[in-house]
Amino acid sequence: MQLPKALAFDVFGTVVDWRTGIADQVTTFLSQHLPGTDPALFADEWRSLYPPAMEACRSGRRPFTLLDRLHFETLVQLVESKGVRAAQLDEGELLDLSYANIALMIAMNRFNGLVWDAILGAEFSRSYKPAPQAYLRSAEALCLEPRDLCLVASHHSDLAAARACGLQTAYVDRPMEYGGALAPDRDCEQAWEWQANDLMELARQLGAA
Amino acid sequence: MQLPKALAFDVFGTVVDWRTGIADQVTTFLSQHLPGTDPALFADEWRSLYPPAMEACRSGRRPFTLLDRLHFETLVQLVESKGVRAAQLDEGELLDLSYANIALMIAMNRFNGLVWDAILGAEFSRSYKPAPQAYLRSAEALCLEPRDLCLVASHHSDLAAARACGLQTAYVDRPMEYGGALAPDRDCEQAWEWQANDLMELARQLGAA
Repeated sequence: MQLPKALAFDVFGTVVDWRTGIADQVTTFLSQHLPGTDPALFADEWRSLYPPAMEACRSGRRPFTLLDRLHFETLVQLVESKGVRAAQLDEGELLDLSYANIALMIAMNRFNGLVWDAILGAEFSRSYKPAPQAYLRSAEALCLEPRDLCLVASHHSDLAAARACGLQTAYVDRPMEYGGALAPDRDCEQAWEWQANDLMELARQLGAA
Repeated sequence: MQLPKALAFDVFGTVVDWRTGIADQVTTFLSQHLPGTDPALFADEWRSLYPPAMEACRSGRRPFTLLDRLHFETLVQLVESKGVRAAQLDEGELLDLSYANIALMIAMNRFNGLVWDAILGAEFSRSYKPAPQAYLRSAEALCLEPRDLCLVASHHSDLAAARACGLQTAYVDRPMEYGGALAPDRDCEQAWEWQANDLMELARQLGAA
């Protein structure tokens, strides 16, 4: 196995615990507007609205739209489906919850002491995973052939799309990514080039720790 | 004076000494192919071909083209103007000299121990300074109003364009940026919001050191 020359990390879910973070974040909001709603289930429901929203951009049904905007729209959709009139809420409250782009990445990196060489997310490639451009433009930005770049992710669907573009793939297991439920993308599971229980184990496999 | 919420740094010339770096880098090449050529003057000449090449992209005469490609073309143009047939050189030699994008930035940051929150260069904004998009997309990526972002640069022309977009401006003096010659953009000089002899002095002015 040829070692990759660079690693591209999926961040939400793979590097940081998105689900618990969101659940913590929405607790106050829910106690005020939707008392009795389980914060972790609310996070799961919100997340389930995210792939169709990105798909609208990928398919060209709507132009490329920043993740913030998509998150905001799906949040409005979710609270309205639960009987809350979003128009009667303080917009700032909803915006605080749906903020997820380079600015958020920077704040999160600083808070967690994460240091990256570059942030090559959707705002950079102007396309959402699993569109090929999202993987290929990252390789291009690093002046690498796709086979020399390895995607590190805890989601089989993400890895499958990266493999289809010629990238190497590293699966990191995050058993609580879906709160312990079965992964919705388990039908995409394959034998990945690298497979580890955590990031340190992956680093050791790659000879980097 | 309202303190900026973020600083955007021009890198080549302002943070790193481009001229000396290139002069060192081309010395071997010149001794083989153009003996007697002064490396620092060669660097200046190469640089002088850079604004017109970017201008072709900005004006729309040609589509957005990566900096590497522009640097490569202007290098070919320069050596050919000196009587060297570029086609007879090893292309790798020319490519080694003209490599200047995110991949180079990462290598340079690692070599120099520079840590950035994000790299928001031309590849991100898909436009070259001093086009307004180059400044405005950086503010947008950081979720900031232009007035809350401050460009740090040693080039008056760059600062003037940033100010025209509503950014704050910080001038850092780099007296050897043109080898001691007068700055070609000195007619753009204005009273900038911040003005310092080096980055540490700027940090002190901003209360950050």
